[in-house]
Amino acid sequence: MTARRGARGTVVLLSGGMDSATCLALVARERGPVYALTVRYGQRHDRELRSARALARRFRVREHATVTVPVGPLLSSALTDRTRKVPLHGTRRGRIPSTYVPARNTILLAVALGYAESRGASTIVIGANAIDYSGYPDCRPAFLRAFERLARLATKAGVEGRTRFRVRAPLLRTTKAGIVRWGERLHVPWGLTWSCYLGGRSPCGRCDACRLRALGFREAGVRDPLVRTR
Amino acid sequence: MTARRGARGTVVLLSGGMDSATCLALVARERGPVYALTVRYGQRHDRELRSARALARRFRVREHATVTVPVGPLLSSALTDRTRKVPLHGTRRGRIPSTYVPARNTILLAVALGYAESRGASTIVIGANAIDYSGYPDCRPAFLRAFERLARLATKAGVEGRTRFRVRAPLLRTTKAGIVRWGERLHVPWGLTWSCYLGGRSPCGRCDACRLRALGFREAGVRDPLVRTR
Repeated sequence: MTARRGARGTVVLLSGGMDSATCLALVARERGPVYALTVRYGQRHDRELRSARALARRFRVREHATVTVPVGPLLSSALTDRTRKVPLHGTRRGRIPSTYVPARNTILLAVALGYAESRGASTIVIGANAIDYSGYPDCRPAFLRAFERLARLATKAGVEGRTRFRVRAPLLRTTKAGIVRWGERLHVPWGLTWSCYLGGRSPCGRCDACRLRALGFREAGVRDPLVRTR
Repeated sequence: MTARRGARGTVVLLSGGMDSATCLALVARERGPVYALTVRYGQRHDRELRSARALARRFRVREHATVTVPVGPLLSSALTDRTRKVPLHGTRRGRIPSTYVPARNTILLAVALGYAESRGASTIVIGANAIDYSGYPDCRPAFLRAFERLARLATKAGVEGRTRFRVRAPLLRTTKAGIVRWGERLHVPWGLTWSCYLGGRSPCGRCDACRLRALGFREAGVRDPLVRTR
């Protein structure tokens, strides 16, 4: 009783960044309804949410659900804790970065699972990429497969055998440059996306997210419409 | 590197009902700090939250965290959907009740996992009981074990081998009457708990939760202080 890819509906976790935008563009070409889900978990700014809304409209999703899960005070991390500085320089290879948020993707996928079951969708798409994969434990294939196993036991649709939930991470082994190249082919509107950890009118250009984004565009030989050339 | 029970801290999922109150009373007697976590996921009323606060104070937890996860509109269930009626009569044995909320316990445990890791706690306690066990998929031992496996892969503390997360469901095979008897021995202040699905000044006495609670007290031969005798 394996559902065909996208045939029964797909939930895309849509942060508003370039990775989830590329996932959405990818899934929008497949069969079956697409639902976008933006989970805000106590981030510093609203800029990403505006991007997510614009992307959901552009790709004509069946529904864009937004939920704020204000776990910031419960968890401790540079991304949610305003007293800690966002690292402007990279972390060493193999080390878990200080931007790690405890159980972040478990919470995201749990909400996505509830949403998917409620809408009759069987697939959850998460934009974890090669850089995340190298750093964060909850971006690794073993974690994603463990979540799929959990999903089958956790849900009515799963235990009754009606739905075999799948977690897809199509960018898991793709670098930022690879995502830019792939996104170009899928006509991702980069100008609608947002990567910067800070939430100003234009990207700061110095934080890890800005630096990784710039590196990706440079390596792919593509101009980032968000970055103004002087 | 298995942590001793409670030695490194315990997070108790505290709804304010009699089951989680009994779990809290149980854990409060053990070694190590106790953290209470109340996750509100779009329930109909605030009465349970007041009970949770009173219980957390009574058992002198180190911290009582409350987080509202307003997933109601995303999910569909009689408990979160105001347009559906709460069933006043029981469901057939073996059937998943209509009060099932998609991925409810996955979401609860995911938030609890993030909270536990942030506080250095290794154990999560959930008040799932024998009635839940018979009905809801996300109360069964296979689900709880799958979540433990996930937790090891999902977290920094897990993959680095510092913490072996455990999910305890001490009431999983205990009936309501058994919980009342156990709670009596642990001096659970039943008057501070709340079970009714509706949120009036006194329990409705007719909903499933009220009926199960009444049955439990009656079978255990204990008077429920919440129920006024005329």
